[in-house]
Amino acid sequence: MNIINIINKKRLKETLTDEEIKYVIDGYLDGEIKDYQMSSLLMAILLNDMTNDEIYSLTKYMASSGEKLDLSPLGSNVVDKHSTGGVGDKTTLIIAPIVASCGVKVAKMSGRGLGHTGGTIDKLESIPGFIVNLSEEEFLNQVNDIGVAITSQTENIAIADKKIYALRDVTGTVESIPLIASSIMSKKIALGTKKLVLDVKVGNGALIKNIKDARRLSKLMIDIGQHNNIDVICILTNMDIPLGSNIGNSLEVEEAIQILKNNKEGNLRKLCVELSSHMVSLGLNISYEEAKTMVLDNLANGLAYNKFLELIKKQHGNLNNLPKSKNKYEIKSMTEGYLTEINAYKLGLLSMSLGAGRENKEDTIDYSAGIIINKNINDYIEKGDVIMTLYTNKEVTEIDNSIFKISDKKNKDEQLIYEIIK
Amino acid sequence: MNIINIINKKRLKETLTDEEIKYVIDGYLDGEIKDYQMSSLLMAILLNDMTNDEIYSLTKYMASSGEKLDLSPLGSNVVDKHSTGGVGDKTTLIIAPIVASCGVKVAKMSGRGLGHTGGTIDKLESIPGFIVNLSEEEFLNQVNDIGVAITSQTENIAIADKKIYALRDVTGTVESIPLIASSIMSKKIALGTKKLVLDVKVGNGALIKNIKDARRLSKLMIDIGQHNNIDVICILTNMDIPLGSNIGNSLEVEEAIQILKNNKEGNLRKLCVELSSHMVSLGLNISYEEAKTMVLDNLANGLAYNKFLELIKKQHGNLNNLPKSKNKYEIKSMTEGYLTEINAYKLGLLSMSLGAGRENKEDTIDYSAGIIINKNINDYIEKGDVIMTLYTNKEVTEIDNSIFKISDKKNKDEQLIYEIIK
Repeated sequence: MNIINIINKKRLKETLTDEEIKYVIDGYLDGEIKDYQMSSLLMAILLNDMTNDEIYSLTKYMASSGEKLDLSPLGSNVVDKHSTGGVGDKTTLIIAPIVASCGVKVAKMSGRGLGHTGGTIDKLESIPGFIVNLSEEEFLNQVNDIGVAITSQTENIAIADKKIYALRDVTGTVESIPLIASSIMSKKIALGTKKLVLDVKVGNGALIKNIKDARRLSKLMIDIGQHNNIDVICILTNMDIPLGSNIGNSLEVEEAIQILKNNKEGNLRKLCVELSSHMVSLGLNISYEEAKTMVLDNLANGLAYNKFLELIKKQHGNLNNLPKSKNKYEIKSMTEGYLTEINAYKLGLLSMSLGAGRENKEDTIDYSAGIIINKNINDYIEKGDVIMTLYTNKEVTEIDNSIFKISDKKNKDEQLIYEIIK
Repeated sequence: MNIINIINKKRLKETLTDEEIKYVIDGYLDGEIKDYQMSSLLMAILLNDMTNDEIYSLTKYMASSGEKLDLSPLGSNVVDKHSTGGVGDKTTLIIAPIVASCGVKVAKMSGRGLGHTGGTIDKLESIPGFIVNLSEEEFLNQVNDIGVAITSQTENIAIADKKIYALRDVTGTVESIPLIASSIMSKKIALGTKKLVLDVKVGNGALIKNIKDARRLSKLMIDIGQHNNIDVICILTNMDIPLGSNIGNSLEVEEAIQILKNNKEGNLRKLCVELSSHMVSLGLNISYEEAKTMVLDNLANGLAYNKFLELIKKQHGNLNNLPKSKNKYEIKSMTEGYLTEINAYKLGLLSMSLGAGRENKEDTIDYSAGIIINKNINDYIEKGDVIMTLYTNKEVTEIDNSIFKISDKKNKDEQLIYEIIK
């Protein structure tokens, strides 16, 4: 076997065998196959596609390329969720306690943010004292004990996927449905997931641009799931609609608290209720409708918020001293009309520049920095109205004024949730 | 401009601009664009193709990435030839003196061999005393003086092409018609070629597998030629037919002498006459038929051989002391029947193992080593007949017996020259 023959096969649209895919993953990990050979193969895969059998093999060998977690001691009512998103993964902070309050276990490993995207672990670290690096034993014990734990992802899970993902990022080979599906599912297999709700983001700013691709990706992840005894439900959601009003680590914790206290309406709450309901339905083996009733009840009766407080306390966090920024800038509208567009990507970049995110892996974060959007889509804005408020310890001198679009006419209300595939 | 956007454009079958292609070539040469990014782009080009305008730009920037030669002081009757082949570039040794004897100038820069392929420069160096590294001035003066010079290719010609070719070789991206065409033509542009005969090899062992691809490649190289004021004629020839009987450096010089002395018939002579006639026709602006008459006359009357002797003498070679091997092994047939196949690729590998070629760039060559094939295709072979003779200074213990195929029935005679495109 040799890598050039394997690249040539894929170039000619032939099907790679299980042994060939094993050879590629092993060879790439031990450095025998070079980056420039792997990227050539990845582009051939992107353009010539893979069969389901090839994708199963790829997923299998990436999943087994690192450590594996065994969640079976936790029983069968453990449910995971994952978003294919980019900007705004704040849903985990809200969903994990809601779902746990309904009796479904959440053993969540999360990551840190890079560039314009935020990470759940950074948000939790903005809470003074909160411990994000639980040992495997502490992690499993806590889930057994209070039904929920959130810890930072170990570096040793699916290491072939990590190495390949980093290469895809710099070689224009990110947007391949077989590669996206196998990347997500290999991690979930390695993490011991057995029940999974996937939030598949669709839109111009997302990896997946249209419903057709989102359907294929969803179907594929469900197939990989079946092949590996994982129950998968995919929720196709609109990426272009802003979720919530707060961006930045401690600001997002504050917003999560508002939602968990049942004090806030809007798209963020709507999506969290939807995802939570599917997770509870999957975890307890009950109908979506029954599950949704439980979710809404637990938001109203305070059980969800109490579970959140229990989680924070258990991981030694103190909500009384969330960090605050020194400087506050109110950005006012210089014109009037309907607020028809909020560019989430540009907001992410602005938030990073305020100190809330990392440009490079080594950068440190200002947990207090961020943005609150003071208006909603389709609100009528008067000249001088505050549209957003910036929180930062830096000096702000200039703002990209293409973040918002103000128009004469309202936009039609866009759909948040397109469809459910299971 | 950034390389990931450029890769994405080609991935989505969009057309790259002249500026984008310049950015790619410049960036790759100065190391800003990495090998793994270039190979991803090359695979996207291979699978999604290029427009003629893109190919013209790519050729232009590769051609100008190194030094350029100016052959205009030599006048307008200078003709070059090139083969897209692999095994057996011995035609240059024969064609250069034939064509020069007809009054057409040949200013030939050639390369060395690697792996199973031989190189003209190695063959010439097997002649004791022969100088292969003429200065540019010596080279041009000699062409002016006796009409022909052969020297080793400078390292500084089309250096972007060299770097890209080396990468294609290890990333499964060799077999792209736009990349093959731009690679060949960029070198020819840099070398100052104005009239060019191209031997486009077609067959299973060749880069180009079928006539359809060979036609597109030929048409493309003619188009690139027109775009750069180069007259191009393409001769599509059968790669699967063995050319001549000798493999190995000094053995090939001996075979070239036999042909130039008009002492040997067969496919090698036939191809050399064909290529020479087109070169003479192009160089003197006369018909192919007139040119062919001159070529055959000069082979018969000794002018071609005399030109060869003149060339050897001018570059200080001494034909009286061609190196001879210590050991000679006669390989006999263990069966009887018609000799229906000779595998040129495997012969090349065998010849290399005898000492005639380089496995790595640094290896030294045994100029005396090689193979003489003692039978022709479709000859009837008796058990015990000598099929080939090995010449080497090594000990030979084992021979790959799949090099030849002996069958009950003759093969039909295959066509050597498929078609001419100009």
